[in-house]
Amino acid sequence: MKKTYLLTPGPTPVPETVSSIFARPLIHHRTPEFQKLFEEVKANLKYVFQTEQDVMILAGTGTAAMDASVSNLFRKGDTVITINAGKFGERWTQIAAAYGLNPIEMKLERGDTLDPKDLEKTVQAHPKATAILFQASETSTGSVMPTQQICKIAQSAGMLSVCDAITACGVFNLPMDAWAIDVMITGAQKALMIPPGLSFVALSEKAWKLAESCDLPHFYLDLAKERKALAKNQTAWTPATSLIQGLQESLRMIREEGLEKIFRRHEILALATRNAVEALGLEILAKKAPSAAVTSVKVPSTIRDGKLIPRTMREKYGVTIAGGQDELEGKIFRLSHFGYCEKFDVTTGIACLELVLNELGHPVEFGKGVGAALKTFAEFSF
Amino acid sequence: MKKTYLLTPGPTPVPETVSSIFARPLIHHRTPEFQKLFEEVKANLKYVFQTEQDVMILAGTGTAAMDASVSNLFRKGDTVITINAGKFGERWTQIAAAYGLNPIEMKLERGDTLDPKDLEKTVQAHPKATAILFQASETSTGSVMPTQQICKIAQSAGMLSVCDAITACGVFNLPMDAWAIDVMITGAQKALMIPPGLSFVALSEKAWKLAESCDLPHFYLDLAKERKALAKNQTAWTPATSLIQGLQESLRMIREEGLEKIFRRHEILALATRNAVEALGLEILAKKAPSAAVTSVKVPSTIRDGKLIPRTMREKYGVTIAGGQDELEGKIFRLSHFGYCEKFDVTTGIACLELVLNELGHPVEFGKGVGAALKTFAEFSF
Repeated sequence: MKKTYLLTPGPTPVPETVSSIFARPLIHHRTPEFQKLFEEVKANLKYVFQTEQDVMILAGTGTAAMDASVSNLFRKGDTVITINAGKFGERWTQIAAAYGLNPIEMKLERGDTLDPKDLEKTVQAHPKATAILFQASETSTGSVMPTQQICKIAQSAGMLSVCDAITACGVFNLPMDAWAIDVMITGAQKALMIPPGLSFVALSEKAWKLAESCDLPHFYLDLAKERKALAKNQTAWTPATSLIQGLQESLRMIREEGLEKIFRRHEILALATRNAVEALGLEILAKKAPSAAVTSVKVPSTIRDGKLIPRTMREKYGVTIAGGQDELEGKIFRLSHFGYCEKFDVTTGIACLELVLNELGHPVEFGKGVGAALKTFAEFSF
Repeated sequence: MKKTYLLTPGPTPVPETVSSIFARPLIHHRTPEFQKLFEEVKANLKYVFQTEQDVMILAGTGTAAMDASVSNLFRKGDTVITINAGKFGERWTQIAAAYGLNPIEMKLERGDTLDPKDLEKTVQAHPKATAILFQASETSTGSVMPTQQICKIAQSAGMLSVCDAITACGVFNLPMDAWAIDVMITGAQKALMIPPGLSFVALSEKAWKLAESCDLPHFYLDLAKERKALAKNQTAWTPATSLIQGLQESLRMIREEGLEKIFRRHEILALATRNAVEALGLEILAKKAPSAAVTSVKVPSTIRDGKLIPRTMREKYGVTIAGGQDELEGKIFRLSHFGYCEKFDVTTGIACLELVLNELGHPVEFGKGVGAALKTFAEFSF
């Protein structure tokens, strides 16, 4: 017998009450029954995005929504500023380049966050840029970017703020309308707690206006067409119906707990994780601005092959965490703590880490990490 | 208590042994466990496509694969011949136009099939065309196109054959390699018997060669990138993991029954449906080349509002069939008979139709339609 635990920043665990829905018979998507379900989902997505705008539902994973946010908005040759704080920031640059835009990339140290002053300088150097593309939370490093300040800078420069909130929306406070985020994106398998296969995007009026002059070709990912369909409680093409049936339930759970409580829960789970990791003598990668979604931990020098940490945790103990990606491969590991995640998910992750560090020859005083997490929970209730 | 029955040409019913898989915990997509599952799925997809080529798995519904088949292959300004026998043929024209190609559209009467001689004339008139884009089975009318002949014409003219086999692959015989189909597409919620959210595309060597000179922008739908990832039993972006977990099981069912038996089953279910409908005095729309996937039936003149037939079947009896789309709305209704579909799905559909026709004032001799279906089953075993 081996129980398994999923502590990755996407997919995150699917609540049992949600996963049981996927075993139900399908509802055809062109029926009043599905449209009624869709209407509820639509309203609850606005709540999660904290917006009055329509939230479009795409059958495609997060990169589909990122692609759509470029291919539906800009004109060939447009200059855009991309903030590359990791693998996903780099993806903005790649998408912009693929569509023949001119990306001005601000590359940060891995684990670092953006200094708004640096952005201001870049904006001044490229006053004709159309938009700033960034991550609210860079999943590959566990660092958050100063979204509100980025949006302010974009707004006063007359640029669009395009925010990949894939591991941010529903994780921590990110009020789309209040902060004037022009384009906000998220994915299914993150704070929305359903399996991968859907992504979501909402546009401000300013962004919809810009979309009208877009000259980049697109067909499947057509936001204007999706918006029109949404008004009739439909999608432009066949939707991923079973995932949307599950989403109805996970959104009900989110509304029931309430965003405020969810954000506090994530914040404390993240704090407990950081405290535990530091109590074990390990170092956090994203010290300056650690994310409430995921904690990236540097592999200690005592362990030669860093990939052994996630591998041993998964293979021997059934606990799946994430390793580092690209240039961070083998150098960090990442513990996720959002979505369907509670106190004992954190303590399980840390307990397993203690066992594995010890096995790999790193000195561990058993219980020190878990103890630090428990101390955090005793201090901050949620 | 109301039992429900799904007799639409997508989504088709999901077998209970498959749907129960969606309630299982998720497998993370970057693990050896998922890669092993993926390897099996990859091999079985080749079996269904009857090809030695890689079958790419996209997180997106059928239109995503259609989009990818244009945006990954051609050059701006390319002339392509599109066969518009219905709503989905029209979509080829729309996609080609969206990417700045020059589509030469052959528009057929709704319900009609292509005469290869007409295609030959069009090919002669446009010898520089790069490709012929068509449907193996036009779902909106229930008519099949002569795929083998289309591919022969394409081949001898040095053009690519791009075949939307969304309601054809796994429904009737469509051997990709043997018939030299250059691009073949299908979707999840059709003969593959899983919920919508995935689509599939395979390319011949000739098509891969052409893709190298493609100059159309694309990012999320990147077939070359998917092919590279597939070699490592992965996908380019996060895959729709739960759907792929279900696909593993539905593909096992397909292999166990075997394509030959499946094709015969669909053929006889279709024949029984046509016989039943004609025994009720109704007329088939696609008389010349009726599809084994779906039977389109003309609404009899005795019934003024044709949309009442599917609506009453669904609302009063829980039997969901499809109506007509676009210009065929209210003029036809469509009974599907493929995928997880057996003799008594056909008799249930016809039985319900008999009740509803009678209620709507069309004279019915009860049992006549069902009787004709049963007679067919008695005559042709499967």
